[in-house]
Amino acid sequence: MAYDVAALEKLIEQFQKMPSIGRKTAQRMAFHVLDLTDEEAKEFSEAIINAHTKIHRCALCHNLTENELCPICESVNRDKATVCVVEEPKDVLAMERTRDFSGVYHVLHGVISPMNGIGPEQLTIKSLVERCAKSEITELIMATNPTIEGDTTAMYISKLIKPFGVKVTRLAYGIPVGADIEYADDVTLMRALAGRSEL
Amino acid sequence: MAYDVAALEKLIEQFQKMPSIGRKTAQRMAFHVLDLTDEEAKEFSEAIINAHTKIHRCALCHNLTENELCPICESVNRDKATVCVVEEPKDVLAMERTRDFSGVYHVLHGVISPMNGIGPEQLTIKSLVERCAKSEITELIMATNPTIEGDTTAMYISKLIKPFGVKVTRLAYGIPVGADIEYADDVTLMRALAGRSEL
Repeated sequence: MAYDVAALEKLIEQFQKMPSIGRKTAQRMAFHVLDLTDEEAKEFSEAIINAHTKIHRCALCHNLTENELCPICESVNRDKATVCVVEEPKDVLAMERTRDFSGVYHVLHGVISPMNGIGPEQLTIKSLVERCAKSEITELIMATNPTIEGDTTAMYISKLIKPFGVKVTRLAYGIPVGADIEYADDVTLMRALAGRSEL
Repeated sequence: MAYDVAALEKLIEQFQKMPSIGRKTAQRMAFHVLDLTDEEAKEFSEAIINAHTKIHRCALCHNLTENELCPICESVNRDKATVCVVEEPKDVLAMERTRDFSGVYHVLHGVISPMNGIGPEQLTIKSLVERCAKSEITELIMATNPTIEGDTTAMYISKLIKPFGVKVTRLAYGIPVGADIEYADDVTLMRALAGRSEL
């Protein structure tokens, strides 16, 4: 049921458009906004506009940044010859959390998905090919998600890049650390078996 | 882990301040904002400011409205002698959904809660007493939540109002329709038993 207050209804609608936010949560969020001070509401409103206008893609790796290049691409401590290819900016974050990767990234901003009408030209694949052609890249580590679409995208890119003499690798499949073999799905188990290594 | 993009981090923080929104959901929401068109982001930002500046409390019942009086208080079809007292604006909505109540409301904007430092003076109780003193109210229906705080508030108001010769009633306690007696809690069952009616 709708509130008889247009401004409130409009705000609820805005929140409801967000992913995984239903009517009830959107209502709660709108009431939270009403409880803010004028100062806080202004800050919130500006944060939206600022994020929208200031943030754009890194000219090299397409990760999100406020500058021409992202901090990782600009860093002199990063190995520019090893590029980890990921689907989304949040995957960069996940990789960085490991503190185990000293190379740079390339963010595709999606995967090839004919079902959703997304072809290679909507992704940053062309720019990745250009990067491989122009600079001294020795290895591409495909870190797309272990889904059919992620795998397809990795395969597609691998075929495009190989002529440049760049080594293309893929993150290992297997049982997640700490997981129970009993509950591992068949495909993961098969992959873990195929990728087994000597002790 | 934080993004190295200040404007993005700020937006995520804003969303994270909301009730029941964790870091992951806040991130997802922030990315949703980045995906908006300029037009949409402006609309969203304005919805926040608009809701905050346009919406205030009805001069009579303290429900949310954009005008001096809310539509319910202004309606000529409403029985002004019967006032349903609720905790929050969303409770008005719940009551309206039943389409079974033709009276008007009084929104307390909270309950008496010494634990949270909320006393009667922080609620709209004084204004309720004034309403009872000034206008021809014959019945107050206490529809505060069936919690200790809701009950206490109802009792407190009832004692204040009775001198005005106004009948004060309380919503019935009992088994919710469609629920299973097996899973009803003891207190609800006791209340349901005490409030039993003849068939």
